[in-house]
Amino acid sequence: MTDIQIAQKVKAKHIREVAKKLQITEDQLEYYGNEKAKLPLSLIDEEKVDQSNLILVTAITPTPAGEGKTTNVIGLSDGLNLIGEKSVVVIREPSLGPVFGMKGGAAGGGWSQVIPMVDINLHFTGDFHAIAMANNLLAALIDNNLQSKTKNLGIDPRTVIWKRCMDMNDRALRNIVSGLSGKTGGIPRETGFNITAASEIMAILCLCTNLEDLQEMCGNIYIGDTFEGRAVYARELNSSGAIAVLLKDAIKPNLVQTLEGNPAIIHGGPFANIAQGTNSIIATKMGMSLGDYVITEAGFAADLGAEKFLNIKCRKGGLSPKAVVVVATIRALKYHGGKSLDSLTEEDVDALKKGMPNLEKHIESIQSFGLPVVVSVNAFTSDTDAEKEFIYAHCEKLGVAVAISNGWAEGGKGCVELAEKVVLAAESCNAKFTPTYNLEDLPLNKIEKICKTIYGAKGVVLSDKAKNQLRRFEGLGFGNLPICMAKTQKSLSDNEKLLGRPENFEIHIREFEIAAGAGFIIPIAGNMLRMPGLPATPSSEHIKMEADGSIVGLF
Amino acid sequence: MTDIQIAQKVKAKHIREVAKKLQITEDQLEYYGNEKAKLPLSLIDEEKVDQSNLILVTAITPTPAGEGKTTNVIGLSDGLNLIGEKSVVVIREPSLGPVFGMKGGAAGGGWSQVIPMVDINLHFTGDFHAIAMANNLLAALIDNNLQSKTKNLGIDPRTVIWKRCMDMNDRALRNIVSGLSGKTGGIPRETGFNITAASEIMAILCLCTNLEDLQEMCGNIYIGDTFEGRAVYARELNSSGAIAVLLKDAIKPNLVQTLEGNPAIIHGGPFANIAQGTNSIIATKMGMSLGDYVITEAGFAADLGAEKFLNIKCRKGGLSPKAVVVVATIRALKYHGGKSLDSLTEEDVDALKKGMPNLEKHIESIQSFGLPVVVSVNAFTSDTDAEKEFIYAHCEKLGVAVAISNGWAEGGKGCVELAEKVVLAAESCNAKFTPTYNLEDLPLNKIEKICKTIYGAKGVVLSDKAKNQLRRFEGLGFGNLPICMAKTQKSLSDNEKLLGRPENFEIHIREFEIAAGAGFIIPIAGNMLRMPGLPATPSSEHIKMEADGSIVGLF
Repeated sequence: MTDIQIAQKVKAKHIREVAKKLQITEDQLEYYGNEKAKLPLSLIDEEKVDQSNLILVTAITPTPAGEGKTTNVIGLSDGLNLIGEKSVVVIREPSLGPVFGMKGGAAGGGWSQVIPMVDINLHFTGDFHAIAMANNLLAALIDNNLQSKTKNLGIDPRTVIWKRCMDMNDRALRNIVSGLSGKTGGIPRETGFNITAASEIMAILCLCTNLEDLQEMCGNIYIGDTFEGRAVYARELNSSGAIAVLLKDAIKPNLVQTLEGNPAIIHGGPFANIAQGTNSIIATKMGMSLGDYVITEAGFAADLGAEKFLNIKCRKGGLSPKAVVVVATIRALKYHGGKSLDSLTEEDVDALKKGMPNLEKHIESIQSFGLPVVVSVNAFTSDTDAEKEFIYAHCEKLGVAVAISNGWAEGGKGCVELAEKVVLAAESCNAKFTPTYNLEDLPLNKIEKICKTIYGAKGVVLSDKAKNQLRRFEGLGFGNLPICMAKTQKSLSDNEKLLGRPENFEIHIREFEIAAGAGFIIPIAGNMLRMPGLPATPSSEHIKMEADGSIVGLF
Repeated sequence: MTDIQIAQKVKAKHIREVAKKLQITEDQLEYYGNEKAKLPLSLIDEEKVDQSNLILVTAITPTPAGEGKTTNVIGLSDGLNLIGEKSVVVIREPSLGPVFGMKGGAAGGGWSQVIPMVDINLHFTGDFHAIAMANNLLAALIDNNLQSKTKNLGIDPRTVIWKRCMDMNDRALRNIVSGLSGKTGGIPRETGFNITAASEIMAILCLCTNLEDLQEMCGNIYIGDTFEGRAVYARELNSSGAIAVLLKDAIKPNLVQTLEGNPAIIHGGPFANIAQGTNSIIATKMGMSLGDYVITEAGFAADLGAEKFLNIKCRKGGLSPKAVVVVATIRALKYHGGKSLDSLTEEDVDALKKGMPNLEKHIESIQSFGLPVVVSVNAFTSDTDAEKEFIYAHCEKLGVAVAISNGWAEGGKGCVELAEKVVLAAESCNAKFTPTYNLEDLPLNKIEKICKTIYGAKGVVLSDKAKNQLRRFEGLGFGNLPICMAKTQKSLSDNEKLLGRPENFEIHIREFEIAAGAGFIIPIAGNMLRMPGLPATPSSEHIKMEADGSIVGLF
């Protein structure tokens, strides 16, 4: 069965029944149909947040073989509920644009999914569209100011870095010239669109702690410079109030359910390269206010996802996980060990062994934060007993807990072993995590600490352009912000061809960006695509609505 | 009190209570919070549609003095409910973009409003955003095809008329060059954005009768020509299924309430110049399935709004109103009679008398359809007894029912006289309306019939460009489509300076457009702005969210 067939086969509970499990009363819910509801921020209870167990699920370096991280996140939460723990899964909302491109849905897979799957992958509760409108209102206000006679801030149109956005894979919008056709069309300038997930407003929504904080953060957005070179911020356009009003509902987390009827919260979905790549602080705290366990994930592998989750999100939110799950697959580890993509179904303990250093590096990185690690081996039918035995024995040698998980085929039942080991790990944790760097460190030191401790690099090299930009950002007072690395996810290094555990490499920072509203400095190593395109045969060609309302061709 | 103060003062009923009045059970509702719900299309009952009384509210030619048409629509429905009729008001959803520009909300005013007013004016239930995504998916697919190596339809980029859209006042997007920056950025071409209300998808959503019809209409959209000059349609991009999936919820009408707790349906909001300017056929039929009276409106004055409502929407939907209300104000009539804007509060029966021919022309137009007319004089405090007496006497002389309405100050109570006269008019109506033209007429004849019968013009003049375009559209087989006139709303003529009842004028058609998906030919007389801009001081500057969640500065 395909994912959508499974998702449509399961009879969903009314969302009020799911809420009841969390002691949420009906009048606290804001329904969006029968299977979705928004949760009011008043349900956040800081005392409960302090007592709840936050579990981060991250992964080894991704390969074309796949790891099934989200499937594991959902399966683990269902598994915890099966063994009697009150667990809530808290994840990101998938982006709509890619649905019509190549990629299927992003709400788990097999018997570990969140539903209503079609809605979650389409407009859901409208949060992404609200974020796009907030982003685009700011853009319209900037262009309106450029041509203003009475209120002109003197912004040099060539310096405006704020782009518009849309939740669509649309490469033709990447680079445009706007403001054409004479006086009534505004001021011509080069600009472009990002996909909504890449908007700084998305990053802000996921890092703010309430609507007031959001309003202030939106005011801090750096939009460009005056002709005299003075930095201009969004607050100078008096835009933050209107932006907050546009986001008054989007700031509320969304309650849905897993296929097994357990609570799931979906909220926010910032990019994992140029942003923090994890759901909102508000949603995480909401989950922790309602459940004894919160299972959450972060984009890409531990080098990007876990590092940012801890150093950016947890630091801002005052959170600390009790354990970190690193998801691996035998197939992917064999790929890291040099085996070719078309022979991954063959048993090959030797390749598996050669691939282990990638997993080991990620384990060490998590341990550098002082947190307990559990390895979850996401099962594939091609895994052999010899391979499974090897990985068990190897993790034992490393002193790290390990479990084989099969959420895809069995749902929560397939993740009971993992759930039990996660509970043990969480119970063993008695300290908050140690960040990789202090905010007071010089920005270059912070970057070096990440590159050395987390990536295993021997150093960092800045281009001349990057050096100048960093000097400017320090001069503007941003030196104390955390770092949000933008690097390929396909390697621990900045060269996507280096699999396994590369050594003796340097990280090359081509340039810097600043997200002064979200509150981080972005060192960019490599090319970052913020607006995907459609493939030669977009999946939209196969999508159809049948007369009975069922959807064909989606996923 | 301001509109928003009134709207926030009234305690809204839970939407399930409003639905109960219409015998809708809880499980038939799809909630969007506690005050909004989507209605399933299965509630449409063609037998009930045939028995219900559809009442169209239209107006005299608009002036800066305002007529308060929407206020009157809502007040009339509340008035009908007060006198014991089961009435549903069915109106358009206001556009979000203008909220941050100059204009306040568009959900009635004073004590005749629909609520939740803030939501209705912001994202509401996400329909406009869904329409924008459907519109923009088609645009992305077109650009993707332009650069396709394997599936290229040979579309000449210079001929693509399909634009992107966004629900924002953003003049810098009106005219852009997209697809820049080399091979990865697509094919450079001139294009632009419309505001979402101006998208043909909006027109289609409001003219389709179900999801299958919508899917087919979306396939019929004309997008441009090949290099050889062959017309290319959206269906050739296999886009209609994905578009329908994006619109699967947007096609469902939205139930809200008036300040008096009576049912209101809000659905769709196409432009009134280049489109039909009235809510969806589906929403109208939904209202008629649920109520004995449906009060609805059409954009601008009767020359544009009522004409399109009848000749386009009612013809496609198989509907026929039982009566038409023409809203006028004494102030606006005095303005038509030559009185200046700053002296409209002075009593001036002579100016009023001189302004009456504008009202008379609109009454005659409605009568040309064979429908009963009721004049509603929307009260202002500056109206004097002498003026009111004059207008009563004048309408009596014309043999037309008239009522003074005061929905703004008194809600339904202020519209009881109007409600009673509307019931009498509806009971007197025993025939379906007579269209202004037959679909089989030649397009030029159809246009002439509209211009002569409805505008009072002596003829129609086509530019050479228009003549060529019309010939092409006829050649493509569109000769049998209805006509959607795009003309200034400020005059019965095509010259906005000609107030009152102009005579001896011709209508000049500058060019034609085709909405092959929505199914109409658009003769364009004058300049049509499809993407508004922001004013020097956008209203967004004053909008703020207070810590307690209340909104300041909106409306």
